[in-house]
Amino acid sequence: MTNAPTGVGRRGPYAKSTERRRTIIDAAYAVFVARGYQGGSLQEVADVVGMSQTSLLHYFPTKSHLLLAVLNRRDTVARDGSPPPADESMAESVLRQAAFNETYPGMAELYAILSAESLTAEHPGREFFIDRFTSLRTTYAAGFVELAARGRLRPGVDPVRAATSLVALWDGLQLQWLYAPGEVDVVAALGDYLDLVVLPEG
Amino acid sequence: MTNAPTGVGRRGPYAKSTERRRTIIDAAYAVFVARGYQGGSLQEVADVVGMSQTSLLHYFPTKSHLLLAVLNRRDTVARDGSPPPADESMAESVLRQAAFNETYPGMAELYAILSAESLTAEHPGREFFIDRFTSLRTTYAAGFVELAARGRLRPGVDPVRAATSLVALWDGLQLQWLYAPGEVDVVAALGDYLDLVVLPEG
Repeated sequence: MTNAPTGVGRRGPYAKSTERRRTIIDAAYAVFVARGYQGGSLQEVADVVGMSQTSLLHYFPTKSHLLLAVLNRRDTVARDGSPPPADESMAESVLRQAAFNETYPGMAELYAILSAESLTAEHPGREFFIDRFTSLRTTYAAGFVELAARGRLRPGVDPVRAATSLVALWDGLQLQWLYAPGEVDVVAALGDYLDLVVLPEG
Repeated sequence: MTNAPTGVGRRGPYAKSTERRRTIIDAAYAVFVARGYQGGSLQEVADVVGMSQTSLLHYFPTKSHLLLAVLNRRDTVARDGSPPPADESMAESVLRQAAFNETYPGMAELYAILSAESLTAEHPGREFFIDRFTSLRTTYAAGFVELAARGRLRPGVDPVRAATSLVALWDGLQLQWLYAPGEVDVVAALGDYLDLVVLPEG
């Protein structure tokens, strides 16, 4: 969603401003992925980009606004970083992404904290997460419906509730894993759930 | 855990101070359960208790310290509020508590936000949540082991991973429910999971 076409065939302050935003987001991505939610400061991001913190606040009025842009950027990176095999199943895709997330604990922490603090009224992330959860539920529900059509969803499993549960389980596992990385295996636990609801082929 | 014996057979400033802390926590509980994480202010809590905000900060140096005490208080209330039937199963207990939580969205929001922001280093809630998650995993793992001994755990289900998953699913469902109460049924989805891993009696 942050990947709006930029600069091509356009000139003037708007294109430049879009360009600048992307540079800031890339810098913030690197800073927060390395240092997490609290460790990364706006000053450090400003330093990386070579602008003053005041100028940076012109593009992103609060740290939360910038962090949301970083989360959007993460989705892009997660997609671009390793193109999914064409014949990848939904379960395989979930487990691959979960394994990918484990390599970026700073980003997982950022996601966990922002997704919770955005519950508060007036938070700039509120609409983002309402949309995100709706979209995730819709996507996975469609996947389960498709599996059901091929006789591969366990009888009695409701596709929408299974989609909600899959997203919930994933978020909750990541939270516990961030507190106790040695004790929680996100990928294995997600695999357990998918094995329970998705029947083997044939 | 906040239920340490107070005042009995004790005199002097320590007993008074403990008494005072409880009064503050009770007031804060009422304020935050009604207004949620952001809506409740230290000033409002101080007003209810009839002390200055400065005096209140003497007992709880930050809002987070006070909120953690409120979470501990919630556990007590959840237990005292409706004593579990003596023959209640683990699954029944989970579903009863989940239904209870839905009646206090302000407290569920407080829990969701604190459990995520406590990930940051130096946060006063960090140890609390590490201990809490460890304790929850241990308790539910023991429950699943007991079910397995009675032949009621689905073959192949790992008790520790199922315990981790149950806690994770619950947290994740509550988060989505807080964003979209009309679209997410926490109790039904938890029931689905328990039906998958726990086999019917006999």
